[in-house]
Amino acid sequence: MKDKTFLMIPGPTPVPESVMMEIAKHPIGHRSSEFSSILKEVYENLKYVFQTKNDVFMFTSSGTGAMCAALENLVNEGDKVLCLSLGNFGNRWAKIAESRGANVEKIEVEAGEVIDPNILRKRLEEDTNKEIKIVTLTHSETSTGAANDVKALCSIIREHGAISVVDGVTSVCAMPCKPDEWGIDVLVSGSQKGFMIPPGLAFLTANERAWKVYEQCKHPSFYFDWAAHKKAVEGNTTPFTPAVNLIVGLNQALKMIKEEGIDNMNARHRRHAMALRKAIKAINLELLVKDDNNASHSITSILPPEGISVPDIRSTMKKDFDIVVANGQNKLKDKIFRMGTLGFVCDRDLIAAVGALEATLVKLGHKFEVGKGVQTIINELKEI
Amino acid sequence: MKDKTFLMIPGPTPVPESVMMEIAKHPIGHRSSEFSSILKEVYENLKYVFQTKNDVFMFTSSGTGAMCAALENLVNEGDKVLCLSLGNFGNRWAKIAESRGANVEKIEVEAGEVIDPNILRKRLEEDTNKEIKIVTLTHSETSTGAANDVKALCSIIREHGAISVVDGVTSVCAMPCKPDEWGIDVLVSGSQKGFMIPPGLAFLTANERAWKVYEQCKHPSFYFDWAAHKKAVEGNTTPFTPAVNLIVGLNQALKMIKEEGIDNMNARHRRHAMALRKAIKAINLELLVKDDNNASHSITSILPPEGISVPDIRSTMKKDFDIVVANGQNKLKDKIFRMGTLGFVCDRDLIAAVGALEATLVKLGHKFEVGKGVQTIINELKEI
Repeated sequence: MKDKTFLMIPGPTPVPESVMMEIAKHPIGHRSSEFSSILKEVYENLKYVFQTKNDVFMFTSSGTGAMCAALENLVNEGDKVLCLSLGNFGNRWAKIAESRGANVEKIEVEAGEVIDPNILRKRLEEDTNKEIKIVTLTHSETSTGAANDVKALCSIIREHGAISVVDGVTSVCAMPCKPDEWGIDVLVSGSQKGFMIPPGLAFLTANERAWKVYEQCKHPSFYFDWAAHKKAVEGNTTPFTPAVNLIVGLNQALKMIKEEGIDNMNARHRRHAMALRKAIKAINLELLVKDDNNASHSITSILPPEGISVPDIRSTMKKDFDIVVANGQNKLKDKIFRMGTLGFVCDRDLIAAVGALEATLVKLGHKFEVGKGVQTIINELKEI
Repeated sequence: MKDKTFLMIPGPTPVPESVMMEIAKHPIGHRSSEFSSILKEVYENLKYVFQTKNDVFMFTSSGTGAMCAALENLVNEGDKVLCLSLGNFGNRWAKIAESRGANVEKIEVEAGEVIDPNILRKRLEEDTNKEIKIVTLTHSETSTGAANDVKALCSIIREHGAISVVDGVTSVCAMPCKPDEWGIDVLVSGSQKGFMIPPGLAFLTANERAWKVYEQCKHPSFYFDWAAHKKAVEGNTTPFTPAVNLIVGLNQALKMIKEEGIDNMNARHRRHAMALRKAIKAINLELLVKDDNNASHSITSILPPEGISVPDIRSTMKKDFDIVVANGQNKLKDKIFRMGTLGFVCDRDLIAAVGALEATLVKLGHKFEVGKGVQTIINELKEI
């Protein structure tokens, strides 16, 4: 059936109709007073969503662009950067740092695990000469569905004195993420995630500590330059021609987020993720992330049952029920499938998804008590 | 009147309804086979529009992003870059080169003038040690409406041996621009210009000579990395999550361009620009670019008549006729206004614009033979 696809991948995520209607409008001039008023609202509401008093910069780019915007304004050749990696996107920080000639050290964990704050503390305590200038970390690791305790990790980094640079691409909007309160120095995110708009915009906020390091950066990025973006935010404009249509859509999406309230939105994501995890277990499937406390509230990674393949699950979900779920990436390809519950997702969607997954597994021959998943999710959604 | 605005700025430009309808569709997964088929068509048709056998890379960014994508994959610290500048966008090349630590030399001309090929030849002949590694130039300078003879300039650069890097942001689609035939080594453009889609995508094509310099680049850009994009084009995918909706719109726009034919599209732009220039003179206004041969086919810069201000002309055009024309930039602010005839523009639009400009000038007290502009444009459009 055409036009019925429901995206349960970690992005692009479902976009509200009212947002799509805004995006569908003919672009207006990006230097017009009309667009400037829209930007004023957008910049203000981004600060609300990012829960910061600092400016939030907006780039016309993928989320990866915002990751570059972080490191390319901080790193000089030879700088020591410690990358805490839970998977693909943790590794991306390392690659970007290396592309700027940084001296990169990684702390990596098994897929589905998170960084133990004690291990980080130990490593940073060893760094008595304060050689480590920047520590990168991932809040919600999109490739595994594991989520770090960013608050604890950033507090340890702050004690050491390095700059913390956090990938909030699939966490901002979905999970509590409070840069000012937690001492996150640089935080980035992307539009096609919790922000409920299509891909093409990315965001970054940096505090005063990060700005001091920026000032020492020998070759800050031209396209992603912080100073140019700060000046633009102050003038309710953009340094270069931005993706006008996406920004008009974002304005509408941010209003919806404000109306729901960021805390309520966070709570909804938590409820959905926790209920889904229980339902998955109820139909005898294994979760990649074992501990609820380490689980992302936006992506849930699930192991296929013995004898049933991930491609079969994905294609049946798509063909029979118009639901797109993601495969694992790289080493995890065909080892897990990932269900996104990020952004514009309601309780009905969760019930439908679990029901469709049950039906898929029935068709593919998995043995379990049919209906148990839906029963569980109904009960959990009611209770959590 | 709402929703009646007609953009005659140098971008964003008017977008066809059928393109907007594509953009208005809910985003699909960027790793789906459906999206991969769209990318296959897009990459193929971009080669047609860019008139090259080489791959055309697509970035989710402003046009400036593609300019960064050019120099950030070529320049090492200390490299000598010669920037031929006709105005703001020529200067932008210099700023990007400097942001990478290049040793920049500029050849600048007065606003509205173009680079004399003999002056470039002389400078390059003096460079007997071949210190100049890259020469940047602008095809159609958006800030003045002057257009270089790219073919002649690139042939001189080729003789010297440097790499030519050309800003085709407002020329590709509008003016003949043939990288393979003319020896342009790197050519960039942006989506909100001749491509008839909203802002948010940018393009780059590079030939083998440029790739050899890329291979020597110590810190190529991560986000705009050529190798990552080449691999992506070959696999009908993108390195990072792209602006899916804009690409779906681009697919439709490229089909329209192919249907019109790139040569016909170029000819239409030339006809419009030349007819507009004649009409402007017929209503006793002065053009910034004096010589037709030096005029951009996408932007026409016009001096206001004595005693009438640019802001008054712009606001009357907007208020009374829903036409947006651009002001001058920087030093040219309030000294000129710029009319874009770029992309999705038909003869009727030109007649309406000249008529509206006449009506505006009548209201503001300019003395001229009313109707002469429209008479001229009707005749010229018929004859050219």
